[in-house]
Amino acid sequence: MFALRVDQEIELQLFQPHHAAELYWLIDTNRLYLREWLPWVDNMTSPADYQSIIPMWLKQFADNNGFNAGIRYKGHLAGTISLHQIDWRNSQSSIGYYLALHAQGKGIMTRSVQAVLNHAFHDLNLNRVEIRCGAGNKKSRAIPERLGFMQEGWIRDGENLYGAFHDLVVYGMLSREWANRAVK
Amino acid sequence: MFALRVDQEIELQLFQPHHAAELYWLIDTNRLYLREWLPWVDNMTSPADYQSIIPMWLKQFADNNGFNAGIRYKGHLAGTISLHQIDWRNSQSSIGYYLALHAQGKGIMTRSVQAVLNHAFHDLNLNRVEIRCGAGNKKSRAIPERLGFMQEGWIRDGENLYGAFHDLVVYGMLSREWANRAVK
Amino acid sequence: MFALRVDQEIELQLFQPHHAAELYWLIDTNRLYLREWLPWVDNMTSPADYQSIIPMWLKQFADNNGFNAGIRYKGHLAGTISLHQIDWRNSQSSIGYYLALHAQGKGIMTRSVQAVLNHAFHDLNLNRVEIRCGAGNKKSRAIPERLGFMQEGWIRDGENLYGAFHDLVVYGMLSREWANRAVK
Amino acid sequence: MFALRVDQEIELQLFQPHHAAELYWLIDTNRLYLREWLPWVDNMTSPADYQSIIPMWLKQFADNNGFNAGIRYKGHLAGTISLHQIDWRNSQSSIGYYLALHAQGKGIMTRSVQAVLNHAFHDLNLNRVEIRCGAGNKKSRAIPERLGFMQEGWIRDGENLYGAFHDLVVYGMLSREWANRAVK
Amino acid sequence: MFALRVDQEIELQLFQPHHAAELYWLIDTNRLYLREWLPWVDNMTSPADYQSIIPMWLKQFADNNGFNAGIRYKGHLAGTISLHQIDWRNSQSSIGYYLALHAQGKGIMTRSVQAVLNHAFHDLNLNRVEIRCGAGNKKSRAIPERLGFMQEGWIRDGENLYGAFHDLVVYGMLSREWANRAVK
Amino acid sequence: MFALRVDQEIELQLFQPHHAAELYWLIDTNRLYLREWLPWVDNMTSPADYQSIIPMWLKQFADNNGFNAGIRYKGHLAGTISLHQIDWRNSQSSIGYYLALHAQGKGIMTRSVQAVLNHAFHDLNLNRVEIRCGAGNKKSRAIPERLGFMQEGWIRDGENLYGAFHDLVVYGMLSREWANRAVK
Repeated sequence: MFALRVDQEIELQLFQPHHAAELYWLIDTNRLYLREWLPWVDNMTSPADYQSIIPMWLKQFADNNGFNAGIRYKGHLAGTISLHQIDWRNSQSSIGYYLALHAQGKGIMTRSVQAVLNHAFHDLNLNRVEIRCGAGNKKSRAIPERLGFMQEGWIRDGENLYGAFHDLVVYGMLSREWANRAVK
Repeated sequence: MFALRVDQEIELQLFQPHHAAELYWLIDTNRLYLREWLPWVDNMTSPADYQSIIPMWLKQFADNNGFNAGIRYKGHLAGTISLHQIDWRNSQSSIGYYLALHAQGKGIMTRSVQAVLNHAFHDLNLNRVEIRCGAGNKKSRAIPERLGFMQEGWIRDGENLYGAFHDLVVYGMLSREWANRAVK
Repeated sequence: MFALRVDQEIELQLFQPHHAAELYWLIDTNRLYLREWLPWVDNMTSPADYQSIIPMWLKQFADNNGFNAGIRYKGHLAGTISLHQIDWRNSQSSIGYYLALHAQGKGIMTRSVQAVLNHAFHDLNLNRVEIRCGAGNKKSRAIPERLGFMQEGWIRDGENLYGAFHDLVVYGMLSREWANRAVK
Repeated sequence: MFALRVDQEIELQLFQPHHAAELYWLIDTNRLYLREWLPWVDNMTSPADYQSIIPMWLKQFADNNGFNAGIRYKGHLAGTISLHQIDWRNSQSSIGYYLALHAQGKGIMTRSVQAVLNHAFHDLNLNRVEIRCGAGNKKSRAIPERLGFMQEGWIRDGENLYGAFHDLVVYGMLSREWANRAVK
Repeated sequence: MFALRVDQEIELQLFQPHHAAELYWLIDTNRLYLREWLPWVDNMTSPADYQSIIPMWLKQFADNNGFNAGIRYKGHLAGTISLHQIDWRNSQSSIGYYLALHAQGKGIMTRSVQAVLNHAFHDLNLNRVEIRCGAGNKKSRAIPERLGFMQEGWIRDGENLYGAFHDLVVYGMLSREWANRAVK
Repeated sequence: MFALRVDQEIELQLFQPHHAAELYWLIDTNRLYLREWLPWVDNMTSPADYQSIIPMWLKQFADNNGFNAGIRYKGHLAGTISLHQIDWRNSQSSIGYYLALHAQGKGIMTRSVQAVLNHAFHDLNLNRVEIRCGAGNKKSRAIPERLGFMQEGWIRDGENLYGAFHDLVVYGMLSREWANRAVK
């Protein structure tokens, strides 16, 4: 219900407990697609799992430590986007996201990440935002690359995905770069 | 940033820590006007007071126990509205609100309360919403009366206002009444 | 063991964990009678339920936030009486109570509530005490009416009783009224 | 207000926050007398100290872990008595106490300790109760000796009293001994 | 891994979670021998029990409130030694220990207790250290007697051992005694 | 007192509260040297600062989440080394360290990091260990380079050092690499 409006089609809605069933449905109907790159998909076996996770997300939000939001495209839940734990001492945070298969190819995620970057740099005054993608996850890596992030690192064995380690690519965007880019 | 949109002019924005200064400014520039009926106005002596209160409001929101939102009218902070602690066992809660002097007379509060009622009855599935007003506070009492609440009680000495007790009037709206009213 | 003495026959004894079995027995032998107006009776299915509730009551007492006491009539547990959460800012609280069927008609509850009112107004310095009764609960309503409380409200659908909402009547007594009454 | 009645003259009243001033007055008017054997007397410099200690005592009581009570003699606060932390695994606890100078010589403490022993052995089902006294504190040691405790130990340097260590004498009473004694 | 070195053969290693299986094995292979004097042996039924106990021990250590260490003799776990809760106000604590049957007779425990006494008196600046032994536990009592502790008490029914109470003997060592002894 | 022995000259000693003064002295006598690359040096203004930090380090250790240890060279405190928060899901952690000026050039840090790597890979079974150094901090970067870490990233504006952001270099070592290296 409480949402950050991206544009006429998209809004990013803070997850509240009454969204648990809808969010579970999104995961459950995209399970095979999402589990290729998301390590926690198999842990989600019923809406009740989100009944306990959503309050933790809201607690994180209440601690001024990022948020987890549903991406609503024309009113329907199409994916999620999060601003992870904020390192206030060093003015940085990172963004995570995923989109249902049927919602691909409409620029939804690019527009959503832009909105979160604006929020991070303007409202929260952060200096740097990071995105980490599986090295082989082309769709995910296309987002920061399209938005002008710089590739800053390649973390070997950075993530355990269902028992096997794979590499992560680190992308960074600085506040001053985003400001200059916006000017263009 | 995360907001419930009421209509083209109004949105109800969850308070986050970076809103502390703006909220304090609203109180400080309406101090004499607001303190007539709000018992806590004198306690607010600097933006730092809201730096510690806003996280408690967000904690309450994270506990699925209501919210505190700024009323933005054409983008500017004009007042606040809250859904207080929720009595889930009995499916009820209460609404509190105030508006800056300069924003009076535009129907802002009536529209905002309507939106919160819709949220309470539809999203949260509550059965009853209460509003309590100072018995002598005509402007505040006009809201529930205009919206069709029933006057259910008159609590003698219900509130301590700067050392003196005054009476509170209790208004109630039931889910089925709101549904019927909305149909008209 | 720690008790507030009402008179030669009655004392109000703070519940401690070793009272769990006795309190459960009271509920269990009055189950049909009590569940007509008490929404939690069906939840009490063994003494163990009170093993976990009594510490919460004592925690509330330790927080200076009311108490839960057994009403002992000639040494035997006959009912309970509680001073609910205290609203210290507004100097008010409310009283709840029930009595076993066999202990009715002896003035036990009237005397017990009087003692709690004395405690609330004299020891705790409260300004107002409220009693809420089911609108159809004649026995319960007779207590505040006999003691001179004023009927201040009628809350529609105020309580969920085993799936159905019913109305609550609100009674209020002010400190100055109680003082004057005591003089007579 | 909630009290354990010892006899017609004495009751042991659970300390609540509204007793802070009275308890401080007791300490303050007996300061020189009490500090000879009580290590914490100098720390008590205003009623506010008890405002923060009493809630901790009540928390301990709520945790089923003993109590702190004022000894009221003919209605007036004359001293305190406590059942310390309870070792439930081994069914034992210890008792501590002190009496104002003016209340000495009336058997008040002997009767109070008897009542606490009855509570400990009968209500709480403990097997053993200990009393520890300063080795040179004759008045204090007279209590367990008069009540038939056995001297079980002499702890060298058992307590730090204002910078100097002194010895403690350990007295023990078992449930079966108390039962036999009560028979006589 | 983090260990206090006693001498060339012995070190006292802080228990960490990855030691749970090894510690359980020690108990399990000495079960009959250890349960004669240790009341908790029967509660240990799988390594998982230590998975939850070891973090509590470490929490106690983090609170500057003693420690629990494995006694490693020539690299192998042979027993445990602990410095229990510390009474900082009175500068005292107590030591507990046990040794596997096969490791008896090598002076392991005497040397280990010496090292803990040095730590307690020199690093932690305690004034008194206590050891409590079952009155009939000759092997255990031999340690403080050999090290020059003074027998200070005999606590009747001091401990509940699988349903039966037995007596405890209290031994004490003072900092100044240990210093003098060390000089010899 | 509890220490991980590196070799005959060096041990890594868990910080306990009684080390606060010694650790402060280390910082205070190396203040100018250390503050060039450590962002928190100016916050340390008295031993009391470490009195509150050390318990938090121990709490982290108790949570199985890394440690903070003093590097003792021939018995004297020469620097510190820490294993930071552990990401158990992905089996990785990071190491931080600093050395006093006078202790440079003896291979102390290289040997200490080797010992922590052995602990991380063998005792804790981690898969990856990271070291992050200021891009301009040659001495610090020499450690992972000498030990065969791979440079995996260059994080622009990765750290705020007294008001100015500077870049961090990320080095990574995998368990299998360390095992192979050790064989040589």
